[in-house]
Amino acid sequence: MSTRSIEAWIAEGPGQKFARGSVDLGSLSAEEVEVEVEHCGICHSDLSMLNNEWGMTQYPAVLGHEIVGRVVEAGPAVKGLSVGQRVGIGWSADSCMHCRQCLSGHQHLCAEVTGTIVGHRGGFASHVRAHWAWTIPLPDGLIVEDAGPLFCGGITVFNPLAMYARSTHRVGIVGIGGLGHMAIKFAAASGCEVMAFTSSERKFDEARQLGAHQVVSSRDSSEIQKLSGQLDMLLITVAVPLDWDALISTLAPNGRMHVVGAVLEPIPVQAFSLIMAQRSISGSPTGSPTDIATMLDFAARHRIAPTTEHFAMNQINEAFDRLASGKAHYRIVLDAK
Amino acid sequence: MSTRSIEAWIAEGPGQKFARGSVDLGSLSAEEVEVEVEHCGICHSDLSMLNNEWGMTQYPAVLGHEIVGRVVEAGPAVKGLSVGQRVGIGWSADSCMHCRQCLSGHQHLCAEVTGTIVGHRGGFASHVRAHWAWTIPLPDGLIVEDAGPLFCGGITVFNPLAMYARSTHRVGIVGIGGLGHMAIKFAAASGCEVMAFTSSERKFDEARQLGAHQVVSSRDSSEIQKLSGQLDMLLITVAVPLDWDALISTLAPNGRMHVVGAVLEPIPVQAFSLIMAQRSISGSPTGSPTDIATMLDFAARHRIAPTTEHFAMNQINEAFDRLASGKAHYRIVLDAK
Repeated sequence: MSTRSIEAWIAEGPGQKFARGSVDLGSLSAEEVEVEVEHCGICHSDLSMLNNEWGMTQYPAVLGHEIVGRVVEAGPAVKGLSVGQRVGIGWSADSCMHCRQCLSGHQHLCAEVTGTIVGHRGGFASHVRAHWAWTIPLPDGLIVEDAGPLFCGGITVFNPLAMYARSTHRVGIVGIGGLGHMAIKFAAASGCEVMAFTSSERKFDEARQLGAHQVVSSRDSSEIQKLSGQLDMLLITVAVPLDWDALISTLAPNGRMHVVGAVLEPIPVQAFSLIMAQRSISGSPTGSPTDIATMLDFAARHRIAPTTEHFAMNQINEAFDRLASGKAHYRIVLDAK
Repeated sequence: MSTRSIEAWIAEGPGQKFARGSVDLGSLSAEEVEVEVEHCGICHSDLSMLNNEWGMTQYPAVLGHEIVGRVVEAGPAVKGLSVGQRVGIGWSADSCMHCRQCLSGHQHLCAEVTGTIVGHRGGFASHVRAHWAWTIPLPDGLIVEDAGPLFCGGITVFNPLAMYARSTHRVGIVGIGGLGHMAIKFAAASGCEVMAFTSSERKFDEARQLGAHQVVSSRDSSEIQKLSGQLDMLLITVAVPLDWDALISTLAPNGRMHVVGAVLEPIPVQAFSLIMAQRSISGSPTGSPTDIATMLDFAARHRIAPTTEHFAMNQINEAFDRLASGKAHYRIVLDAK
């Protein structure tokens, strides 16, 4: 089985529809596992990659990086996994394993990290491969069919909360979408006082249901200014320009604004505003394998799952249209069967 | 003695020369001490305040906030100080002492902190007053006549190093001037590998003498880019626009750029650059009374003193001209006698 064709949904160029086809993955390498895909979430970055917005898409492209499935084959040097085990794979499929970041447990910061859909075949396919360390076993207690989005969107918002948010903190989540709705759940389950910021008034009630204690319109600078000096942490989950001065001014002394949405326009930061209240601004990508495993344990313990819509894998083009329309509520998962 | 006139060097308006005069400080309050000034450093912020650059100067103004002297009177509620004791006073002279920041030991982040020269009479005078908690005893082993600048410039650069720099870190100090030269000394004494960034080639040798292991031209973006991903911390001690993208890209994964120079132009921060390498950008003002006391102990233990030029207090106008010329090497101290 170690050199064979798989079935995959293939995009031949920027913005093109996916078409079913076969792909030869070549030989399975010693440290790789091959996973039979059961479910694969669609992340907004799959849409960006489909459209080659970041200039790093290689066509023909097989996307999909929020994968849940079962190990069907393991290379001879694979550790800690066995055939038949249920696992997940997220944004990263491999890293060098010998640099300081990898050896320090910060494999997601490896300069040679391999993205699952960057020069690599992703999970909109019958099978996908990854390094064993980046193939994370699912703990009991997760909803298997909804677990995929935890592996990219989930860890993206969980990791900064795990690093910086304390249970006693007042935490603002900016944006209630694919990332933000999971951030609200994680922050509320972490014991934080949660304030949701959204530009959409129709999401106010739902934000409260997700666990927010207060909801603020992110379009209303005067409302934001009323929170001046109040928040210990702001987590920015959207990638659009915001009223940055007003948002930063909501931070209490020693407060932190953390960005996971890769807004393209530079964020204009007033040095004086950082200095006077000893504030920080930071960002992070996803998380290490251990971070992901810790998040899965936390999600299982708190019964946290993303809110999903499901499509059959062969409805992938309809599902991408749905995501592009901005109406997905909140994450879309494709099911293999 | 508790209500009486003192002698002071008074500026009647923006940019005016100081003239000797007398000022009535009114009654000494219960928690205040009065200090007879022996030495007072001139900080660049005294020049900014003289010129009302920040719109918060109240005239007639008595400036000076890097003060060393002896306690001559203590209010009835003063704790831990006695008449005759040698002390110092820095940027802050008082804070509310009952807010969460004050009660948490972050008195410098109190929203009602009183600047020594903001609506308050400073140290270019025969006497100055401050709350007892902000009046810090000098430990043995300091060079008394050079200790003044530690109380503002010193703590400004010491505190971020104490908070964030580890002995194993590679730390870049940007700017070799009144702040930066002390930062190099503190970072080298902390066991860090120190890289000095300066726009002035004539300072290269001196930076090494101060303790830098490497010196880089901050005007040479290609030299800066060679350091891509190398530094654990960058401390920005100047308040001028820099090649921010190049500087931020010198940070290693988990690296931090910390700003203590209040550059007026916003710093344009690329979210992607923070996200991919999990970087932070932060700022801080001076430090709490405990931070200052800790810095004084550290400076005494490592024999760290600012490099100074001395003027007699009655040469204050010549000293300000010298500071304004940019030629001071590196801190100016006025001596009462």
